[in-house]
Amino acid sequence: MYPSLKRDSRFSELTNEHIQFFKSTLGDDAAVIDGVSKDATDDLEPFNRDWMKKYRGHTKLVLKPKSTEEVSKVLKYCNENKLAVVPQGGNSGLVGGSVPVFDEIVISLSRMNKIRNFDDISGILVVDGGVIMEIADNFLAEHNHLYPLDLGAKGSAQIGGNVATNAGGLRLLRYGSLHGNVLGIEAVLPDGTIFDDLSTLRKNNTGYDLKQLFIGGEGTIGIITGVSIHCAQRSKAINVAYFGLPSFEHVQRAYKEAKIQLGEILSAFELMDARSQAFVHEVTGNKRPLEGDHPFYCLIETSGSNTEHDSEKLEKFLEHVMGEEIVSDGVLAQDETQVRQLWGWREGITEAIGHFGGTYKYDLSIPIKELYSLVEETRDRLNSKGLVGDDDSYPAIAVVGYGHMGDGNLHLNVPVRKYTQEVEDAIEPWVYEWIQKRKGSISAEHGLGIAKKKYIGYQRSDTMLKLMRQTKDLYDPNGIMNPYKYI
Amino acid sequence: MYPSLKRDSRFSELTNEHIQFFKSTLGDDAAVIDGVSKDATDDLEPFNRDWMKKYRGHTKLVLKPKSTEEVSKVLKYCNENKLAVVPQGGNSGLVGGSVPVFDEIVISLSRMNKIRNFDDISGILVVDGGVIMEIADNFLAEHNHLYPLDLGAKGSAQIGGNVATNAGGLRLLRYGSLHGNVLGIEAVLPDGTIFDDLSTLRKNNTGYDLKQLFIGGEGTIGIITGVSIHCAQRSKAINVAYFGLPSFEHVQRAYKEAKIQLGEILSAFELMDARSQAFVHEVTGNKRPLEGDHPFYCLIETSGSNTEHDSEKLEKFLEHVMGEEIVSDGVLAQDETQVRQLWGWREGITEAIGHFGGTYKYDLSIPIKELYSLVEETRDRLNSKGLVGDDDSYPAIAVVGYGHMGDGNLHLNVPVRKYTQEVEDAIEPWVYEWIQKRKGSISAEHGLGIAKKKYIGYQRSDTMLKLMRQTKDLYDPNGIMNPYKYI
Repeated sequence: MYPSLKRDSRFSELTNEHIQFFKSTLGDDAAVIDGVSKDATDDLEPFNRDWMKKYRGHTKLVLKPKSTEEVSKVLKYCNENKLAVVPQGGNSGLVGGSVPVFDEIVISLSRMNKIRNFDDISGILVVDGGVIMEIADNFLAEHNHLYPLDLGAKGSAQIGGNVATNAGGLRLLRYGSLHGNVLGIEAVLPDGTIFDDLSTLRKNNTGYDLKQLFIGGEGTIGIITGVSIHCAQRSKAINVAYFGLPSFEHVQRAYKEAKIQLGEILSAFELMDARSQAFVHEVTGNKRPLEGDHPFYCLIETSGSNTEHDSEKLEKFLEHVMGEEIVSDGVLAQDETQVRQLWGWREGITEAIGHFGGTYKYDLSIPIKELYSLVEETRDRLNSKGLVGDDDSYPAIAVVGYGHMGDGNLHLNVPVRKYTQEVEDAIEPWVYEWIQKRKGSISAEHGLGIAKKKYIGYQRSDTMLKLMRQTKDLYDPNGIMNPYKYI
Repeated sequence: MYPSLKRDSRFSELTNEHIQFFKSTLGDDAAVIDGVSKDATDDLEPFNRDWMKKYRGHTKLVLKPKSTEEVSKVLKYCNENKLAVVPQGGNSGLVGGSVPVFDEIVISLSRMNKIRNFDDISGILVVDGGVIMEIADNFLAEHNHLYPLDLGAKGSAQIGGNVATNAGGLRLLRYGSLHGNVLGIEAVLPDGTIFDDLSTLRKNNTGYDLKQLFIGGEGTIGIITGVSIHCAQRSKAINVAYFGLPSFEHVQRAYKEAKIQLGEILSAFELMDARSQAFVHEVTGNKRPLEGDHPFYCLIETSGSNTEHDSEKLEKFLEHVMGEEIVSDGVLAQDETQVRQLWGWREGITEAIGHFGGTYKYDLSIPIKELYSLVEETRDRLNSKGLVGDDDSYPAIAVVGYGHMGDGNLHLNVPVRKYTQEVEDAIEPWVYEWIQKRKGSISAEHGLGIAKKKYIGYQRSDTMLKLMRQTKDLYDPNGIMNPYKYI
């Protein structure tokens, strides 16, 4: 699977003695899947493969501790015995960060799934690391609050994993990043030390904010066992509008106007290019929301506490941008069904594109002004090399761009009839060089994992990498935590 | 000044040779205030004293570099020559963090005051560390954006200092903390290394987020020379209401209702107790906003994009909380003058209290449910010891509580006729023990500096302190950065 990688010989091989220790420590049959003393390939399979079936490892052991103390005992033993480990939440990541590369032990947080506390005055939620995102959000909905993150994998993604990967998603524009919303973290360091910073305070200015290192640390310096997070009031009113626009210049003007006129109720501003919408139409057969063809489409969502006020603001905004010819055409969802239908034109893109074969996917941050230039330049590049076209003789089908416009986050997708070295070589590392020149990010929200590890030099200076590696060495001197990945 | 502290003998004494190096490196007469080769006591005075005149140091040298490269050269030399330094921004801190303790060299950022860039589509501002907060906010106002922080010292506080102290202030409830809003930091490490992480991206998931260590790092691991920060759209409409309430239980209900009904437009929920408002009335002589006496008062501010909508929401909210008898009485500002007048009853407290002599001040975070219990218990405690009363025979005048209710941030103030050991011993360390039991914070927004250093053990576990000291040793092995303070 990874021809350039070799198993690190510093790490011990698993023995029956190790297994005995884990079984007696965790004391529950359900807590250990043991593929060392017997064949357990099928039971281990879901922990060895990611959901895209793109990455695979060869673990022989899965441990499911039930408490922070158990995590501590297990990690301390692994550290002393030089056993490499991979922390695993919902295993819904996109960069191969949560599956083993070789025979690392998987430590699954799935049995640490308690909601510890919720204060409905402050809106502060405290949970075990293994609580599933959607379960937390449903619980919060009953208390008129919302989990400040939303993403496609919410039905399986765990909160500890959200934090470890610094997941972004659909609500970032409105509710901000986890670096601001996470108030406290409890984690276990490789030597078994319990990092006890599960503060439930919005303001706390007492020393270095070390918990931030675990946010986006991708399980390389410790395992997150508890999270305290600030949750906002749930909005009563959700409105959605969908526009067609003549150019990316117009998209930028529309975004600027939306920020001014919709201000505090703006909760999403999504960009979709013509090609992405054609794919959704072709695959779903759904009637298009607007007549005619437009080079660009946007979806705007507002969330607020008063339906009438929000509708009035959105209607006024629509009138303005159509009157000024910033947008060519637009439609406003009239009910919840239409809200879901319009969102389908954005959320259905990934599936529609995947329908035809493979896809080269890039999750990039780019200064907004240049956001779409990359799609155009990639299209020109593949065109000039004769690699993209409508008939089956071309390896690539199209070059598609969409994403979270408000966050400067572009998803560049190149659907292909089959994966070929030619197409890959035409895009990489060129795309990373392009990003490097604009000081963008080679991974906006997916993280590094094993997929982006080799490209980190396009993003970070030698100084920053040196400092990051110092942090890794300080927290994990034996290098047992999620090896072969990250920086 | 600090009888228990001794000058650390590891640090060199300043010589004329050192001065020569700094003069030739900075190459500008205005860049060096030299109290070594000549008497410059008066010129050095503002750098040796904080604005409260509570802390004082004895520096003989102030350096004012004009670029990141100059900061780098200066720090590298100091590190090699074991010269201790204190980074200084606007010197408006409250815990003695920005003035020297002994003869540390002051490195003032005052000449690094350029606004480097602003993107009015994304709302991302990039500035030198020495840019004054109010200047940035005025600049942003011209572009319909706002600096996401507001505090009394904004006319002198610098952005680098805001970030280094992780300042909280009045806008945190709405716009969140600097850990979420700061997108990039450029800093110089003690060995002269330039920490180049001045990203202007909202999403960037590529390695440990080390810049977070500088946010609230209080100048102990490096000097912040550049900041990139996300700024929100400036609201067109500001509304303010002022209430009287019968109990703290009612204050909590009012806050909960405000979150539900005002949701996205709520920008401040401030708490003032009866005694605090009596002080403001006594000192200013202003007519009280409400008839009669109430045990508690609250100030609510809303900021939004539509004046009519916001007024309607606030009026409906007022009707509801008065109808339900959650508040006893209330008034809504009718124009900008009244907005300022009502805010005066909150913002005027510090000055009014200070009118009678000294004040013991505590800036605490407490879970909201118990927020006001501390004021009551402190009052009972001083009463039972016969230390507080109306006539001049008592050392303490009153026990007063107010603060940012929405952030769980209480300012406990004990104005005294004169400072006495008896009053101090009655409050400390008792107040810190009280906070420790409730898992609150001994410093919500002011930081540690030299004032709170000795109490950090009430807040942080030995594990957390050990990890923090490892970070300090990693970045500043010679310990030259802002010594004698912090953790």
